[in-house]
Amino acid sequence: MRHYKVSIQGEVGSYHHETALNLFPEAEFFYRDRFPEVFEDGKNGRSDFLLVAIENSLAGSLAFNYDLLEDYRIPIIGETYMKIRHQLIGYPGTKLSDVREIWSHPMAIAQCSKFLGDLNVNVVEKADTAGSVRLIREMGRKDIAAIAGKTAAKIYEMDILSENIETDHENYTRFLILSDKYSLPVKEGAPIKTSLYCRLNDEPGSLMRLLQPLTEAKVNMTKIESRPRVGKPWKYDFYVDLLMDANSEAGINLMEELKKRTRMIVVLGSYPVWDKAYEVEG
Amino acid sequence: MRHYKVSIQGEVGSYHHETALNLFPEAEFFYRDRFPEVFEDGKNGRSDFLLVAIENSLAGSLAFNYDLLEDYRIPIIGETYMKIRHQLIGYPGTKLSDVREIWSHPMAIAQCSKFLGDLNVNVVEKADTAGSVRLIREMGRKDIAAIAGKTAAKIYEMDILSENIETDHENYTRFLILSDKYSLPVKEGAPIKTSLYCRLNDEPGSLMRLLQPLTEAKVNMTKIESRPRVGKPWKYDFYVDLLMDANSEAGINLMEELKKRTRMIVVLGSYPVWDKAYEVEG
Repeated sequence: MRHYKVSIQGEVGSYHHETALNLFPEAEFFYRDRFPEVFEDGKNGRSDFLLVAIENSLAGSLAFNYDLLEDYRIPIIGETYMKIRHQLIGYPGTKLSDVREIWSHPMAIAQCSKFLGDLNVNVVEKADTAGSVRLIREMGRKDIAAIAGKTAAKIYEMDILSENIETDHENYTRFLILSDKYSLPVKEGAPIKTSLYCRLNDEPGSLMRLLQPLTEAKVNMTKIESRPRVGKPWKYDFYVDLLMDANSEAGINLMEELKKRTRMIVVLGSYPVWDKAYEVEG
Repeated sequence: MRHYKVSIQGEVGSYHHETALNLFPEAEFFYRDRFPEVFEDGKNGRSDFLLVAIENSLAGSLAFNYDLLEDYRIPIIGETYMKIRHQLIGYPGTKLSDVREIWSHPMAIAQCSKFLGDLNVNVVEKADTAGSVRLIREMGRKDIAAIAGKTAAKIYEMDILSENIETDHENYTRFLILSDKYSLPVKEGAPIKTSLYCRLNDEPGSLMRLLQPLTEAKVNMTKIESRPRVGKPWKYDFYVDLLMDANSEAGINLMEELKKRTRMIVVLGSYPVWDKAYEVEG
């Protein structure tokens, strides 16, 4: 198997890394601090694939990453969902009763509020989850634990003191896989999703005009989100996901029709729907 | 003037605090770590007003806060926009050339990437912006600076070493004002916005059916966002903002019509459109 190069945001053991390992177990990873650096890796050809979180069931859509999709135009070739599971992680041999302080990213802390409330220890917000595990490992402290994913515990050879401590067990992150070099294998007859960015005419009923041909063609919309145009408070663009193949004959015809009904429409990618939805678990 | 009680998420000098001070200069503030605590203050009657960020032009909508709106049903009585401006803040007497390290929240760091790239110093991610300023003040260090808003510099009596260092100067956060005790004064003839949460029937064309009466009544939609129902990947609810008064005769009739066309529809609030849009600056 080829050793693909994959760029992700986040460090070793982060949720991005965990998801990327599931998809590309043999890959060489580039760990980037910020999302624009991930997109730059794609643009410069340093990476074969980019993995980018796009929405989370608690935090919502990452609008900034949608903007990067539109700026860089590196095609979406697939999607995956990851169930976010948080673990309380400590130095080997640590008992839960040893723990006086817990470190993690504010979002992970918020998502474990019930567990933390019952525990009654000092909670400290840190810049990230896996990085907290790494620091505790380096310091060898048994009075501090971190909240992070399983992969962080495994990589840094730390103990899981308490499993799946998230308050809401139905917390998913959707990731997009981008590449302008490769596409993912598509099973015969598998459903295809198309992600679009569009700008409507500034007139009443313009969204209706966009939806009409979709309804007539019985195309399902799996997402719609208006994106305000800053400084123009009453104008906005849309991100839309449709269950259709933009490269099929029906899809090409439909896109022609949509083009007539919008000021601008961009296909960000047409890719197989993740058929093991929600199976990747952290 | 009455000394209102206002609950916000974030600490003294945070962007929430900055915005709240603009709206309620004389208020007593409750600073909460997490958004659910802010909503609890409203529910228990501890606070008169809640101020809650709901979307940012770079980060997108805060889906978690939308869920809290739906859970707690504390009415939206107003909205405001704040232009996010980041300052490089140091201990009094610090020169830019003294700075070897910069601390801030990852989002603020990401938003100042151009400035930081030119500066070539060590950048450290911290849990928040105003908290970084407070820490540097306490330590009295001149080799570390923080990125935060003007208010943090003022409150902690620190110097602004470099002004408005954000890469994209068009970065806005929209905040909602909630109260079940008070409403904001409405100017005669001022436009009213209504925020709705709705669940459609699971059938093709159901979004079209929702839009039809809005188009006929020439009601402008200022926002639409699908909210996936977790575990049911192809089903979703919607958050919608309309330029209409749900309490006017026309509004009541329209709501009746929308009720017939949806499985569930909830008015989260009907409130004056912020008429000095984008005027509140950080």
